Amino acid sequence: MGTLSKDKIYSFEKSTKLFERATKVIPGGIYGHQSPVLCVPGSFPYFIEKAEGSRFWDVDGNEYIDYMCAYGPMVVGYNNPRVEQAARKQQEILNVSNLPGPLWVELAERLVKQIPIADWVAFAKNGSDITTWSLQLAREYTKKKKVLVAKSTYHGTHAWCTPLPPGVTPEDRANIVFFQWNDLDDFMKKYEANKNDFAGVIVTPFRHEAFENSAMPGPEYYKTIRKVCDDSNAIMIMDDVRCSLRLNLGGSNEYFGFKPDMICMSKAVANGHPLSVGAASAKLKGVASAVYFTGTYWSASPPMAAAMATLDELEEKDGVAYMDRIGKMLMDGLQKLAANHGLQVTTSGPGAIPYMTFANEKDFRRMQLFSAEATKRGVFFHPHHNWFVSTAHTEDDIKQTLEISDVAFEIVKKKFGS
Amino acid sequence: MGTLSKDKIYSFEKSTKLFERATKVIPGGIYGHQSPVLCVPGSFPYFIEKAEGSRFWDVDGNEYIDYMCAYGPMVVGYNNPRVEQAARKQQEILNVSNLPGPLWVELAERLVKQIPIADWVAFAKNGSDITTWSLQLAREYTKKKKVLVAKSTYHGTHAWCTPLPPGVTPEDRANIVFFQWNDLDDFMKKYEANKNDFAGVIVTPFRHEAFENSAMPGPEYYKTIRKVCDDSNAIMIMDDVRCSLRLNLGGSNEYFGFKPDMICMSKAVANGHPLSVGAASAKLKGVASAVYFTGTYWSASPPMAAAMATLDELEEKDGVAYMDRIGKMLMDGLQKLAANHGLQVTTSGPGAIPYMTFANEKDFRRMQLFSAEATKRGVFFHPHHNWFVSTAHTEDDIKQTLEISDVAFEIVKKKFGS
Repeated sequence: MGTLSKDKIYSFEKSTKLFERATKVIPGGIYGHQSPVLCVPGSFPYFIEKAEGSRFWDVDGNEYIDYMCAYGPMVVGYNNPRVEQAARKQQEILNVSNLPGPLWVELAERLVKQIPIADWVAFAKNGSDITTWSLQLAREYTKKKKVLVAKSTYHGTHAWCTPLPPGVTPEDRANIVFFQWNDLDDFMKKYEANKNDFAGVIVTPFRHEAFENSAMPGPEYYKTIRKVCDDSNAIMIMDDVRCSLRLNLGGSNEYFGFKPDMICMSKAVANGHPLSVGAASAKLKGVASAVYFTGTYWSASPPMAAAMATLDELEEKDGVAYMDRIGKMLMDGLQKLAANHGLQVTTSGPGAIPYMTFANEKDFRRMQLFSAEATKRGVFFHPHHNWFVSTAHTEDDIKQTLEISDVAFEIVKKKFGS
Repeated sequence: MGTLSKDKIYSFEKSTKLFERATKVIPGGIYGHQSPVLCVPGSFPYFIEKAEGSRFWDVDGNEYIDYMCAYGPMVVGYNNPRVEQAARKQQEILNVSNLPGPLWVELAERLVKQIPIADWVAFAKNGSDITTWSLQLAREYTKKKKVLVAKSTYHGTHAWCTPLPPGVTPEDRANIVFFQWNDLDDFMKKYEANKNDFAGVIVTPFRHEAFENSAMPGPEYYKTIRKVCDDSNAIMIMDDVRCSLRLNLGGSNEYFGFKPDMICMSKAVANGHPLSVGAASAKLKGVASAVYFTGTYWSASPPMAAAMATLDELEEKDGVAYMDRIGKMLMDGLQKLAANHGLQVTTSGPGAIPYMTFANEKDFRRMQLFSAEATKRGVFFHPHHNWFVSTAHTEDDIKQTLEISDVAFEIVKKKFGS
């Protein structure tokens, strides 16, 4: 596992060949959040062969310490033995069939116990299955249509929320009202303008969109949104898809001290096994039965077994505290290294979801070079998207990461001077 | 495996207790297509413990020959050794990570080769991920908005297509134009009324909605829709989610002899491992790169390994022909048994997706009694939804099924007289 070296620079022949084949039969070769155009083409691998613990190996055999964790789902290590054993055991008995298995109930009971605001849960596959349904529940509950959404916040790629305009009609967003994130004056203005048809608000626990530093909300932000929803009998939804199980096992709202009516969870809930969860208060249970919601694979038992084991791991190892500590160790280390080189970096986000940018640029050119040089030496840093750590990331991983980051900072310093 | 007996009537104590627990923490206890209110509550199990081949066992230990195949995904038998071995082997190496694995390309190449209309494919998790995206692609390609959809056809539970009104706003359907299924006059009328803003049409290969006999389209149906789309440079989409791999490995359109621009696949594509596929012609590849589309688990490799093995199984065993034969054997047998009892039944659908109703009722009362009595003796027949067979269904399964169906018909005859 300790084969990384700051002196060894990776090349990507097999990745590149495979990507050329991919472009022939798949739009863009690789699409969506994994699209190479969102990283630094040429300096990153295109395809992964295997993954274990905090590391993965690309198809050229290059080894990486991973700071994306599959964009969130990996939270207790790739191929975690406990999670995989639980999922495999269940898979041998029952995957998907005409009806759910007992884990449908057992996992629901556990989550309701674990999540303070939850009186019930529902299961699906994608995070956006749940976020989109949550808006429908708010509308059905209130018999109103407008939902307030912070501009540029990522809630998925459905037409009401996708960050890119192609394929979207004005009607898809007719009932979405955008306000400026963390700007309560703007929030109140948009609320006032729409209060006669106000169904609710959807928020992420903090600001974590791509191409931005992560940012924490002001002290009155959630308090005000909660009050407005209460006063209007409207629904406050938290899209916790990206942060699930990384800040607080009871929902990231507990970390920030507020109580939404519904939490949308996914990504880390089953350590990469496909599962998303809606967790909500009793007042939405009636409309949740009425707004038709289903999918072929949603009652599959193996991801539920994986979720139970993921929770066991996180509880027993105090995973949330561990990730906070290890992620802060990474951010502190990067800050110090940068300062040593006379560079200014901004670290942001909670420890479990760290990120770094260069303070004196908006065009990410230093960040792209830094990430590319780190990645080519075995530390997978995304230039434009917040990172993730897991309970599988060790202090030794951080040490090796910083050794390689030191070289990457040096190269940035040499090229940009500051 | 041969433990079924027409004289043994099942009870559902453990199922019932588990369902009571479920209702406390999950809306409706079990929601969506698996909701017990859509079967015959009290005469069907609520929870399944294990599944193998053509059979499953509920939590009370009752054994069933299954004619729902998990509502479609199971096509080569539950826990198929070849599929499970392939998925497990892949799972041990790589599930989901920052980038896809080589199977992303290998499966895409195979599907493009296998599906005559396909120049490219894209992967997702739910069938409705693909159907909803297909409408966006049609809109982006044509720069028009209206999509024609046959009324009552099932395309998923997104707001534009859900069969139930709660949670849906008028704006969600502002660009959907409903026409009567298989009614070309109505189709042309709706097309004419919307032709200046006509983006395309989405069809299922045949009519297979719940609470209806399955029905085949008239000979001019697809020809006319294709011509209208060609003349308008609009997009013809086939929602093959339910029928994927059961009528033709190249797409169900090959079975019916037409060429859509895009095929939406899911359910059986990986024998229950979560995967959906969009397969389309070259002209949509550009817009497919532009309409942002992604999900956390979509590049996971194990379902792709399962899909490769499912295709191997179906190809080597000529699964499509086998399912057609075994399903027709079932339908023929049921017809004969019903006639022996002086009952009139209607069988419908292709062999692989068979269905039966009673010809002299519209309220499904005979059908509910028949299904309940069969299910309570180990033959799981859904009263209101088309059935499915798989390559794991044997002639001996059909023989046992007909023995038990004979008793169920007798009970129907006794209660209803005809």
